[in-house]
Amino acid sequence: MKKHPKLVFEPRFRIRCGGQLVFGPGKANLLEHIQKTGSIVDAAKAMNMSYMRAWTLVKNMNDSQNKSLVETTRGGRLRGGAKLTKTGLAVLQAYRKIETQSMTATRLAQIKIADMLSS
Amino acid sequence: MKKHPKLVFEPRFRIRCGGQLVFGPGKANLLEHIQKTGSIVDAAKAMNMSYMRAWTLVKNMNDSQNKSLVETTRGGRLRGGAKLTKTGLAVLQAYRKIETQSMTATRLAQIKIADMLSS
Repeated sequence: MKKHPKLVFEPRFRIRCGGQLVFGPGKANLLEHIQKTGSIVDAAKAMNMSYMRAWTLVKNMNDSQNKSLVETTRGGRLRGGAKLTKTGLAVLQAYRKIETQSMTATRLAQIKIADMLSS
Repeated sequence: MKKHPKLVFEPRFRIRCGGQLVFGPGKANLLEHIQKTGSIVDAAKAMNMSYMRAWTLVKNMNDSQNKSLVETTRGGRLRGGAKLTKTGLAVLQAYRKIETQSMTATRLAQIKIADMLSS
């Protein structure tokens, strides 16, 4: 019997609209970093992501639905900042809730899979 | 207000062991197609996936944990076939249960996100 570390389950909910990917784990993490750092540049750095990629994801989040999720401010000494809109924060919180709830609800099936694979 | 189609939520649970991805939505679909077609070749075709890619995923599923999930048979007129092991079938079923349970448990938060984005 091989020894192996513990299995880790990660919910990675995707939200689609038509064929388009509207929201998912990457965008949730980006929102969280923007919330923490107050800046798309710094959020991108924290995620080892190019600024262009982060900017594209933000634009995509703001344009794909009726509500913007990130608000940017320009000018001043600090190259402009970014923060979550009220909707952006609420969507992030609801998404994290989905992750927590799905982990709790599936605990037994997770244990079953882990037992089957490791025994 | 933009009109847009309904939001669709997809749980895409990943199972990791150490740094390695052990199981996820793609492997679950591959197991399901192997179960249906009795063949890795046909499962790969049904998923628009190269045979080499499918074979690598099967090898990875069989080697990464203590139990094999797919059993292959060689020779005969039909280039050999493949079927799920008892563990493979049970893992697939438990994974589908995780998907169903997580969708049910998060229905309210899903509605909340859909309402926030579309209103």
